[in-house]
Amino acid sequence: MNPEALYRISYGLYVVSSHLDGRPNGQIANTVFQVTSDPVMVAACLNKQNLTHEYVSKSGVFSVSVLERQTPMTFIGRFGFRSGRDFDKFDGVDFFWGKSGAPVVKEHAIAYIEARVVDRMDVRSHTLFVGEVVEAEVLGEGEPLTYADYHYLKKGKTPKTATVYFRD
Amino acid sequence: MNPEALYRISYGLYVVSSHLDGRPNGQIANTVFQVTSDPVMVAACLNKQNLTHEYVSKSGVFSVSVLERQTPMTFIGRFGFRSGRDFDKFDGVDFFWGKSGAPVVKEHAIAYIEARVVDRMDVRSHTLFVGEVVEAEVLGEGEPLTYADYHYLKKGKTPKTATVYFRD
Repeated sequence: MNPEALYRISYGLYVVSSHLDGRPNGQIANTVFQVTSDPVMVAACLNKQNLTHEYVSKSGVFSVSVLERQTPMTFIGRFGFRSGRDFDKFDGVDFFWGKSGAPVVKEHAIAYIEARVVDRMDVRSHTLFVGEVVEAEVLGEGEPLTYADYHYLKKGKTPKTATVYFRD
Repeated sequence: MNPEALYRISYGLYVVSSHLDGRPNGQIANTVFQVTSDPVMVAACLNKQNLTHEYVSKSGVFSVSVLERQTPMTFIGRFGFRSGRDFDKFDGVDFFWGKSGAPVVKEHAIAYIEARVVDRMDVRSHTLFVGEVVEAEVLGEGEPLTYADYHYLKKGKTPKTATVYFRD
């Protein structure tokens, strides 16, 4: 098996956010996708070790912020390489509380989606959460950041908790 | 809810193939993604109306061919807008029988992945198949075709059975 073949799968890059008792948290995710159109449902695959996983599991809601292509690495690092157990990732970040009850990151986002979890699948290290979309809006006209942009243009690294991690 | 927000999610474009009693069939899909890295597992979301859905359900194996950016619309149309119930989609197409037992489309593919189904989730109109990867190889050095390329560069249409269909 050549892991390079797996890297040919295309993804975007998102902040998936949720809350617990009013405390917001979010993380970078690449595996976000629409699974049905009637009703509109989306899925997100989150690592069980992540605090956002715990928040989505317990609150049953999540939001997805679609990042713009120009999103700085410092912003991605804040949500992707540090844990919300250690600091408040939302401190100083432009966000609002959405219709679903989930926090929604507006900063560097060109669109957002809010969903209520209707099903979940245990896939060993991760959980695949499927949610019915309760709100979705466009926030800007920019191009979405893709995982390929992130890796090849920004020389981005992948944390060990990602769905696509293969090696150091 | 603004459906345009959902269109900001990034996808690639793939031929997902399977077989029934040695008869190959395949379909275009955009919702293919890696869900875990240890073991390596991928998921594909297929419409229950599609013949490939029936073949994957019954055989328990599928392959994913990652299409190259230059894939002609006629090729996409063959796999995406016609049913394998009406004709043999693989007739005259460059493919081989993979390690998993699934047929693998080589034509216009820059990489392929083969998987054995280990779990499935019913998501109303579609089924989300999760498979453990048994083989994955790179076939060429081109860029992958993205769903954005397909829609915006090729003015592609979306069939009603897609995960992301919204309107005529």
